[in-house]
Amino acid sequence: MSTDPLVVFTPSGKRGRFPIGTPVLTAARQLGVDLDSVCGGRGICSKCQVTPSYGEFPKHGVTVREGALSDWNKVEARYDEKRGLKAGRRLGCQATVQGDVVIDVPPESQVHRQVVRKAAAARAIVMDPATRLYFIEVEEPDMHEPTGDLERVARALREQWQIEAVTADLSLMAKLQPVLRKGKWQVTVALHKGHMDSTPRIVEIWPRLHEAGLFGLAIDLGSTTIAAHLTNLDTGEVIASSGLMNPQIRFGEDLMSRVSYAMMNPGGDAEMTRAVRDAINDLTRSIAQEGGIDPALIVEAVFVCNPVMHHLLLGLDPVELGQAPFALATSESLSLPARDMGLDAMNPRAQVYILPCIAGHVGADCAAVALSEEPGKSDDLVLIVDVGTNAEILLGNTTRVLACSSPTGPAFEGAQISSGQRAAPGAIERIEIDPATKEPRFRVIGSDKWSDEDGFDEEIATTGITGICGSGIIEAVAEMRMAGLLDESGLIGSAEQTGTVRSIPEGRTHSYLIHDASAEGGPRITVTQGDIRAIQLAKSALYAGARLLMDEMGVDKVDRVVLAGAFGAHISTRHAMVLGMIPDAPLAKVTSAGNAAGTGARIALCNIGARAEIERVVRQITKVETAIEPKFQEHFVAANAIPHKTDPFPELAQVVTLPRPSFNTGGDDEKGGRRRRRRA
Amino acid sequence: MSTDPLVVFTPSGKRGRFPIGTPVLTAARQLGVDLDSVCGGRGICSKCQVTPSYGEFPKHGVTVREGALSDWNKVEARYDEKRGLKAGRRLGCQATVQGDVVIDVPPESQVHRQVVRKAAAARAIVMDPATRLYFIEVEEPDMHEPTGDLERVARALREQWQIEAVTADLSLMAKLQPVLRKGKWQVTVALHKGHMDSTPRIVEIWPRLHEAGLFGLAIDLGSTTIAAHLTNLDTGEVIASSGLMNPQIRFGEDLMSRVSYAMMNPGGDAEMTRAVRDAINDLTRSIAQEGGIDPALIVEAVFVCNPVMHHLLLGLDPVELGQAPFALATSESLSLPARDMGLDAMNPRAQVYILPCIAGHVGADCAAVALSEEPGKSDDLVLIVDVGTNAEILLGNTTRVLACSSPTGPAFEGAQISSGQRAAPGAIERIEIDPATKEPRFRVIGSDKWSDEDGFDEEIATTGITGICGSGIIEAVAEMRMAGLLDESGLIGSAEQTGTVRSIPEGRTHSYLIHDASAEGGPRITVTQGDIRAIQLAKSALYAGARLLMDEMGVDKVDRVVLAGAFGAHISTRHAMVLGMIPDAPLAKVTSAGNAAGTGARIALCNIGARAEIERVVRQITKVETAIEPKFQEHFVAANAIPHKTDPFPELAQVVTLPRPSFNTGGDDEKGGRRRRRRA
Repeated sequence: MSTDPLVVFTPSGKRGRFPIGTPVLTAARQLGVDLDSVCGGRGICSKCQVTPSYGEFPKHGVTVREGALSDWNKVEARYDEKRGLKAGRRLGCQATVQGDVVIDVPPESQVHRQVVRKAAAARAIVMDPATRLYFIEVEEPDMHEPTGDLERVARALREQWQIEAVTADLSLMAKLQPVLRKGKWQVTVALHKGHMDSTPRIVEIWPRLHEAGLFGLAIDLGSTTIAAHLTNLDTGEVIASSGLMNPQIRFGEDLMSRVSYAMMNPGGDAEMTRAVRDAINDLTRSIAQEGGIDPALIVEAVFVCNPVMHHLLLGLDPVELGQAPFALATSESLSLPARDMGLDAMNPRAQVYILPCIAGHVGADCAAVALSEEPGKSDDLVLIVDVGTNAEILLGNTTRVLACSSPTGPAFEGAQISSGQRAAPGAIERIEIDPATKEPRFRVIGSDKWSDEDGFDEEIATTGITGICGSGIIEAVAEMRMAGLLDESGLIGSAEQTGTVRSIPEGRTHSYLIHDASAEGGPRITVTQGDIRAIQLAKSALYAGARLLMDEMGVDKVDRVVLAGAFGAHISTRHAMVLGMIPDAPLAKVTSAGNAAGTGARIALCNIGARAEIERVVRQITKVETAIEPKFQEHFVAANAIPHKTDPFPELAQVVTLPRPSFNTGGDDEKGGRRRRRRA
Repeated sequence: MSTDPLVVFTPSGKRGRFPIGTPVLTAARQLGVDLDSVCGGRGICSKCQVTPSYGEFPKHGVTVREGALSDWNKVEARYDEKRGLKAGRRLGCQATVQGDVVIDVPPESQVHRQVVRKAAAARAIVMDPATRLYFIEVEEPDMHEPTGDLERVARALREQWQIEAVTADLSLMAKLQPVLRKGKWQVTVALHKGHMDSTPRIVEIWPRLHEAGLFGLAIDLGSTTIAAHLTNLDTGEVIASSGLMNPQIRFGEDLMSRVSYAMMNPGGDAEMTRAVRDAINDLTRSIAQEGGIDPALIVEAVFVCNPVMHHLLLGLDPVELGQAPFALATSESLSLPARDMGLDAMNPRAQVYILPCIAGHVGADCAAVALSEEPGKSDDLVLIVDVGTNAEILLGNTTRVLACSSPTGPAFEGAQISSGQRAAPGAIERIEIDPATKEPRFRVIGSDKWSDEDGFDEEIATTGITGICGSGIIEAVAEMRMAGLLDESGLIGSAEQTGTVRSIPEGRTHSYLIHDASAEGGPRITVTQGDIRAIQLAKSALYAGARLLMDEMGVDKVDRVVLAGAFGAHISTRHAMVLGMIPDAPLAKVTSAGNAAGTGARIALCNIGARAEIERVVRQITKVETAIEPKFQEHFVAANAIPHKTDPFPELAQVVTLPRPSFNTGGDDEKGGRRRRRRA
């Protein structure tokens, strides 16, 4: 048996004997311990920091004595002087093994470190991005052995990092020669691993050690909003999040009206493509500024979006998506240069990855939800509803996963609602209506206080009360239903019928007054009969989609429901259930996953393996087409009532008793009158 | 033994037995017979035409009876009616085997047909281009089995052509959906095989059968001229050849002055890049017009060029090529989208291939000469000299190949010559000087007559006599030397010394008057002492380069010499030898290969295997750097004399006896006075 010192790494527990003098980094590599290094052991990147432990370790059967690692050498001392090493830390590439030792690899020194996430339910992200930094020392040119600078860079990557082959585009080649000379043949390259089996590509090169990091954008491109997370590709940390309205709204609120715009206006698709690309470029610049980084450090972007946005982003005419059989130009994932998409605010050689589409109506956003929420790994039957202008719905468990999309329209996002607005300071986001007095109290984005609490007026003084956002309108309608202001069919009762002066006539229908600042020149915030109808259309579409999947699965109920979507986190599950947005389920089993599509984008951004995974998973998902399914229409009509005309809601009944008024006096019922199909 | 009919294919001789009713195309494919088909056997492309033979074939042991093939079916009859089948021809996909038969595959029906070439010495080109047409029938979309149109195109290629995977860029995807529907799901795609192991890429798609062909450009991008051959990628036929001056000349006549321009002027490299790309775009449009094709049918371009042109074409600053160690940004071959190089006159998805560079001074043009002339396959020791503004020189045989470049300057192309001009109508291209009378006779481009023949004046009436082109100046100087007008040192004798009034004083030197039209307002064409010096510099550089390779090879003589280059075909080998441009060799062993670099480009354009071959061959070539080799300077000085100061020319002496005058009267000799190094 070897008498070489024993080296035990924690937390992995990997162990082995190494000759005295072996650098810790070398030992780690030989054992396959996950210890980072960008400079390849030259003592300049400090990524390989470790913490030796001393004393008795009965668990490992080791006693670690002082002197188990070599003393600090010049490189470590210089590093400590310049940058400072945390107490107890050593540089793994400099410290050498002198005796039995236990060495801890702290999380930040692991290559495949796990990203700490707030939402405990969601899957962990293990860092393994497609683009990584490599520090190399490149041989100088020799005119007697002529080779190109690029070929010597490739050789350095092969010899120093075991990377077999690399490519580079012309714009990178144009930087190569000056940077190599500026760095005196020491450079850092950012290498993009490539998609499928393609050759890794050098996307950037810097003289000497590049220390400003690499960043990526995870972008959830919705019909109404565009949300981006600027992510550090080394740590996984989101350093800035930002969003803006999708400027394509001016061409049509929902997807089908945008497809129509493209059909009716020659060049209309190109116009919309330009608009969304410009917006993404603006967003890229502003988020980089917010994060305090040079936008050229953004070397990757991952997009998730529905199929129409997918085509318009890529510059593909979406016209085929407007009619059966809803053929996509391409359904598979795409990896392509950002430049080819006109995205020129990030690094000129940044690479874009777009998740696969599932079907003509079920997009990369749905794939992202599947990646984030993993219905195919759930033992119980889970219904996942990603609520946006278009809802993506997944139903499944370990045996089978189904998916569809449903055209809810933008009502859930506060659009097409009389007092609706996007979720921004000043918007009502929570509301309660006293069932006895029919008086409302509410909360506004920007303040934690309810409107009837002391100090509310002061806190909202600067923003004012400007409208209702998506979650606010859902609560308002549900509260109206619970307070008896609204009957099952969705009719608002008159002041006489409801006993409150807040019910005010508007033409032949009524509105419910939430807040009136008109005396001070402010807005008058009401929920109109039209608003109720818009919400009914939206929630019926959502419910009908879910029911269709349940039919296909052959079930009447689901074990649990996950609400996802840009505002999924803000929807009160109880209110959603009262509205009948989702099938009946125990309230404790209805959870929110936040922006699951955005999370899926982040996962694909941070972990290249997740891309292969979702490409595989998507092929196994059964797609259900709602648009031509006659049963969808049936479900849709039945779901118009609040919560539902025919389906019982026993779980809901256990927590909420709904009053049963009827305000239909004969002539005024417009129920079903606007039962047109929409996509968006 | 099978009693199925025997099918024998000629000229391959491949044979096999097939059941009655087997289509000829099927039999050919199973036997690996080279029989073309674009439509995959649907009877619409007519590429699979064959000629059955009837009667006794003792050589094959077969008797072919009437009825050995099926009668014409409807498809063949319709094809014949519409387009006409040559007598005796059948469509291989329609005619079926009914009995023993001998079937000839005519050259135009072979996929890998050989290109007929004029120059017998040069290698044959076997057609196997990187880009080919495939007719496919694509499945229609089914919303219950949703897949993208691109994925169904890929499936059709896999199922109908056994092509495993394909990619397409965004611009192709944008065309995909309308073209598929226009072609009613029958389309032709042009597929580019890709470089190394990259995935084949769809570069174009047309509805139904595309019959207008595919084309490629082979471009020899020289310092002074740009020459292009528009080639049919199916037949290999050159349908148009065209050239223009390199517009970069305005930034510097030779390469080194262009590198200086880039060094001295910020953005100067980009300016030169723009100029050459614009010129190539112009050339692309004009050559397509000349060839009578839509420039969008040009799907490939192959470039050969020297390293400085290589970098400037690619948009890489050539500054490193101006100083030792002459480091290339990249030396390997490149395959990249034409669009990335700003070449937008051809198909927007055209692919460019650029041959590898050998060294910082030995470019892709030299690699192309090696590909065309194959010195590494020569049993005897061959010296190949590609004469241009910069000369590429190869020396080798089956054991070893050496290469260098030499900065001859543009004198051989008629530039920097007082009466010089490019080879165009009106230029003197041949000249003879009577050794007794010292009177010249000459021929002018545009006429076959010598100037002393009847009718010469009439024939040149429209063009006039405008100057001397490259081959003309070489002959003129050599003839002056043979006629005793010029001494070994290169001095022109006075009228007194030479005995002719055509020797006219100019300052302290003399000129030889070839033609004087000044009385009629025309030019006065002379060879000045300065012209002689320019030619001496050029030929010394050429000779010194060749000698350096011979030193490295350890030889004093070569077995044969090949003169290549844009004007290599026009150089009189005897005159070249008198000048001492090339080492002494038997005149019968000095041949011309025409534009070998251009031929190399054509080979790489027509045959994808040749690309891999030259990439391999280049790695085996020994590069000799002339610029810093002290012996080069020695050889250069010694080669200044005409033909040479020290080297004997015994082979030349057998055919030409050179007079030995000396016109040096003491003070006027400027020999060596302009011995500056140039790169160009």
